[in-house]
Amino acid sequence: MMVFINNRFLPIEEAHISPFDRGFLFADGVYESIRTYNKKLFRYPDHLDRLKRSLNETRIEFKEIESIENIIYELMIKNDIEDEALAYLQISRGSAIPRTHSFPKKKISPSTFISVQNLKENTKEQTDGVKVILQEDVRWLRCDIKSTSLLPVVLASQKATEENAAEAILVRDGMITEGTHTNFFAIKNETIYTAPKSRFILEGITRKVVLELCERFKIDCREEFIVKDDLKSFDEFFITSTTKEITPVTSIDYWTINNGEPGKITKSLQAVFKKLAEDY
Amino acid sequence: MMVFINNRFLPIEEAHISPFDRGFLFADGVYESIRTYNKKLFRYPDHLDRLKRSLNETRIEFKEIESIENIIYELMIKNDIEDEALAYLQISRGSAIPRTHSFPKKKISPSTFISVQNLKENTKEQTDGVKVILQEDVRWLRCDIKSTSLLPVVLASQKATEENAAEAILVRDGMITEGTHTNFFAIKNETIYTAPKSRFILEGITRKVVLELCERFKIDCREEFIVKDDLKSFDEFFITSTTKEITPVTSIDYWTINNGEPGKITKSLQAVFKKLAEDY
Repeated sequence: MMVFINNRFLPIEEAHISPFDRGFLFADGVYESIRTYNKKLFRYPDHLDRLKRSLNETRIEFKEIESIENIIYELMIKNDIEDEALAYLQISRGSAIPRTHSFPKKKISPSTFISVQNLKENTKEQTDGVKVILQEDVRWLRCDIKSTSLLPVVLASQKATEENAAEAILVRDGMITEGTHTNFFAIKNETIYTAPKSRFILEGITRKVVLELCERFKIDCREEFIVKDDLKSFDEFFITSTTKEITPVTSIDYWTINNGEPGKITKSLQAVFKKLAEDY
Repeated sequence: MMVFINNRFLPIEEAHISPFDRGFLFADGVYESIRTYNKKLFRYPDHLDRLKRSLNETRIEFKEIESIENIIYELMIKNDIEDEALAYLQISRGSAIPRTHSFPKKKISPSTFISVQNLKENTKEQTDGVKVILQEDVRWLRCDIKSTSLLPVVLASQKATEENAAEAILVRDGMITEGTHTNFFAIKNETIYTAPKSRFILEGITRKVVLELCERFKIDCREEFIVKDDLKSFDEFFITSTTKEITPVTSIDYWTINNGEPGKITKSLQAVFKKLAEDY
């Protein structure tokens, strides 16, 4: 596996970061995951805009942002990616001694890490739907920044895995925010609901595409928080992410929805999303 | 500088972690900072207990915990620490490919990083007192775990630095929780107040020592949240941490307390703490 780290392409065995990297010491970094369709990075400008926003909010001064796209394509070649790729890129504030909570006084260069892998398609999950569990949202109050400060996500995600669920859906003060790495949607009376853009959610790129599809196909869609105690009043649910695309939710904790059948509107959205991706 | 990393003592230039270390990707790790008095690690058993608790809560299985103490002393020798030392140790869940939010399916070994440095005493701060600023507490809801998921702490701490303050004191829902890397105390009518043990604060070792001193010297001390809007009704303030020990707070945002003079009870506590440390 070849990766890109701090301006060099290297085999993963030779790719190192310093233990004084602030990404390691403080989670002082941001990241993006991007996939390809037809070997082309999907909605790359959106990912780039979000990355710029994350860098801006964390005040990490990263100058080589325009070079990332080519590096990813280069890594796809170097790693002989045959079908579709999933690219991961992370930028931390850089490495400095001594460890200080505040930004280092002397100017340091950010650390860059980029890797690509063969994308595993979740065809079965997307056809059959998945189980999710509900978990308290204990994350920080700036979930709009795609930062590597992800320990709460790790712990909630592990809980989901142990309960044979595909995702943990997070609940803050009785409101559903999003999944650990997905956005959450619920449908009632042919209207789609999802949590509004705020500091409680990350604005997913697939979420954005779904909202665009709703507008194009005149589906009523409201960015409003879904109340946990009202869940049973909804007809359909789905989650979205770069790798899960649009995945139907067929059970939530011990509640099986519609006898475990993915919902109709969810399936229609999947179909138009699939078309859009195929034509990308 | 010699450090200890994954079972080896190495010069820092040769000490590396993988970019796939979950400490780097997810802040999936915990840490401790420990100082010496008379070249002896201060309250080491308390730090060890807290580390065990952090490992337990994050379910990181670290078996070599009993060896840490000797490694730190060894590093003090290898680094020719002449006076007192500040030791930093971090344990992450380890390194795994591919990146998955849940714990890796195959068993991995935790990564260990330990470094020591000459301790810089903050004599002036402790004599004169410091300015602090108030900042919204946007951290996650498990601040009782000493994890490396510290981006909110970095950003708040940087804000303090830019306002020439020594610390940012965090306020959640109108209540003062703690500083970014200190506990916060306020005194009124000879009674000391500090936030109660809960998931909103880290139980500092120096905080614990202060509570013990209060008990020993029959000073009334209450573990109750201090309300931000009541701050001006208190007479004295101080912050505690391993490196700041007991540091008087002489101004909060634009409010100068007692004409900038450290408080009497604070100074008494400093004196008994100093004696305790000297005799350690």
